[in-house]
Amino acid sequence: MKDNPLISLKTFEKARECISPFIQKSALNYSRTLSEKTGTQVYLKMENEQRTGSFKVRGALNKILNLSEEEKNRGLISCSAGNHAQGVAYAAQCVNASALLVLPENTPIVKEEAVRHYGAEVVLHGKVYDESYTYALKLSKKKNKVFIHAYQDSDIIAGQGSIALEMLEQIPELDSVIVPIGGGGLISGIACAIKQMKPSCRVYAVVSALAPAMEYLFHKKKYIPEKHFFSGGLADGIIVKTPSHQIYENYISQYVDDIVSVTDDEVASAIVLLLERGKAMTEGAGAVSVASLLKQKNKWNLGKKCGVIISGGNIDLNIISQVIERGLKSVGRLARLVIVAKDQPGTLNQITYLLAQMKANILSVQHERNDPNLSHGLAEIQLLVETRGLDHLSQIRSILKKQAYKVKEE
Amino acid sequence: MKDNPLISLKTFEKARECISPFIQKSALNYSRTLSEKTGTQVYLKMENEQRTGSFKVRGALNKILNLSEEEKNRGLISCSAGNHAQGVAYAAQCVNASALLVLPENTPIVKEEAVRHYGAEVVLHGKVYDESYTYALKLSKKKNKVFIHAYQDSDIIAGQGSIALEMLEQIPELDSVIVPIGGGGLISGIACAIKQMKPSCRVYAVVSALAPAMEYLFHKKKYIPEKHFFSGGLADGIIVKTPSHQIYENYISQYVDDIVSVTDDEVASAIVLLLERGKAMTEGAGAVSVASLLKQKNKWNLGKKCGVIISGGNIDLNIISQVIERGLKSVGRLARLVIVAKDQPGTLNQITYLLAQMKANILSVQHERNDPNLSHGLAEIQLLVETRGLDHLSQIRSILKKQAYKVKEE
Repeated sequence: MKDNPLISLKTFEKARECISPFIQKSALNYSRTLSEKTGTQVYLKMENEQRTGSFKVRGALNKILNLSEEEKNRGLISCSAGNHAQGVAYAAQCVNASALLVLPENTPIVKEEAVRHYGAEVVLHGKVYDESYTYALKLSKKKNKVFIHAYQDSDIIAGQGSIALEMLEQIPELDSVIVPIGGGGLISGIACAIKQMKPSCRVYAVVSALAPAMEYLFHKKKYIPEKHFFSGGLADGIIVKTPSHQIYENYISQYVDDIVSVTDDEVASAIVLLLERGKAMTEGAGAVSVASLLKQKNKWNLGKKCGVIISGGNIDLNIISQVIERGLKSVGRLARLVIVAKDQPGTLNQITYLLAQMKANILSVQHERNDPNLSHGLAEIQLLVETRGLDHLSQIRSILKKQAYKVKEE
Repeated sequence: MKDNPLISLKTFEKARECISPFIQKSALNYSRTLSEKTGTQVYLKMENEQRTGSFKVRGALNKILNLSEEEKNRGLISCSAGNHAQGVAYAAQCVNASALLVLPENTPIVKEEAVRHYGAEVVLHGKVYDESYTYALKLSKKKNKVFIHAYQDSDIIAGQGSIALEMLEQIPELDSVIVPIGGGGLISGIACAIKQMKPSCRVYAVVSALAPAMEYLFHKKKYIPEKHFFSGGLADGIIVKTPSHQIYENYISQYVDDIVSVTDDEVASAIVLLLERGKAMTEGAGAVSVASLLKQKNKWNLGKKCGVIISGGNIDLNIISQVIERGLKSVGRLARLVIVAKDQPGTLNQITYLLAQMKANILSVQHERNDPNLSHGLAEIQLLVETRGLDHLSQIRSILKKQAYKVKEE
């Protein structure tokens, strides 16, 4: 750890004080389910319930509240596919500044409307985030507006760090915290603040396996080859192609104890667990920390009490059913069985009889015989079934196979 | 209001004290969104985050903790398709009593597993709840077990009433509360406690429009004809066919200010609003109170501060996508367009061009020409599109119609 942190505890405290009238002190809730699963007392910091649905509003507020009058009068500009846009729009509204947000063209309507809801102007430009970013930067110069970066800015980082101050006030005995990494603003703020307040507290971080550049940089001290990056995925809020060297050098390499990556299947299971057991709605990037907790429970030194950041809840409702299906499938509670069988009366009846015997609930059935890839006289039956778990599912598969049905593996 | 309430404030206080080691004091959260929509400060009592996922655990605990040793040794029996079963199973586990739960045969696996998770024995019997109930009663006599009724029991009612004590402690200035009615245990406990503690506080109640018997009894003072009852629906947790006359006479007619009913579309919209804006997962029966708040905001005398009971969160994840689709549809944010058009190259392209012009996001497309009901040369195109609201949707429909497409109404 550095002797002179770039952001002092006093600066974090000032940031917290400055933004507190405009945000919620989010709850730090004990999770019985996760505590039972890990053997550690787990507390969830519910930033999904924060104003605008994510922690991003903290950094944006701290940045914008500290602008000069002249800067606020010039107006603000930023770009983001998601939570940062809402944070900036909300913060601009709080200080009566105008804000222009550049969003990628494929942004879901609901996110665009949310930004407009806070009175900001929206421009749709660019097929991917990088294109929107370049355009927004150009526009900021042309229109002489103040550009608000999503993470590479110490005011932003100080704002995100206010979460750490709240957490150690809520549960001073925390032995460890788990934080998602996207650009790195959140982890920088939290890690830098925590290690000053309580150096014994471990700070663990998590990235998406689809964009693991910061994990690679942390462990191998070099940049990951381009081919390991995939845009999109469930945790799209933390998909960042090129990690900021400055963030890595100044914060992550100094204050973070370990970084791990999680797959989209692990993220989907975490979202489902938080929905079903915690009754909490989280987005993919908001649930990665829970996914990493479950993955690393025996590897990380979590101590007696662990604080886990649920960073946001802005998941597109139009994709939630796919997420749920994926999450339930990955733990064997839902299965799509594809069976090729003789196309004759009684076949479907026998299959449904076998499934009823096995106490698998059938949720939907599709029966297809027009597929030119099927041999004559055969039909393909697709069933969506509710099952008890992976063991139950493999029992079902083997009983169907014993009856000479061809069950395709999905 | 009666001079001598059947359950005294002291009894409610005793119940609260008795169950408090085993439950959570659930949060009473300010809802910015609902406050803006209604002009009243709205506070949500989050019983969806309660142990076992609903308030039912309160009554079950108060009943079971007050049984004699002899009764606990005989073992407990109950029946329920849902939350009461989990409540009884959990409470039995707390006192180390054995519990046998009779569930209807079609109970989703996840609910059955939840009951078993608390160490209870499960018997699946009966096509509908009434059959399970009759069977469980018979079994209780045969096996000499103590039957735990879901609502018609003053210990159960006293347990549910503990919610009112917590709420008035959390926000003493509440001017009104809104409570769902199923069997009537929850409303009886809350209304009877509130009117003793703060007689000026209005108590409003809500039933499902699919089972409005208690509303009918309240307003018309007689039983509703059988044909107005439909089992199932989104708020299945509060579908009760025959209202208890005892509950009506002793509690509802005494302490409740008004009862209204809400449709499944209104319930779906409320679930979606709570998910999207509140990041909270609720079941249909848990969201009816929000649905009624929105419906009655100009009719009920809500005062400055209104407390709304979110009674449970145990929604089956396998149906959540249908609920979301229904909720989004009912506010015009999602639409299924069915278009009959000439089956020739370029048709789909022109339709998608028009939708792109209108900035409607296409989520899925199905193109069907084998339907024998279609005239030769025509195809049916089904599109699922994300829209901005009901106005936007009707603009889209009229532009498609102007281009001579036949758009079916769904």
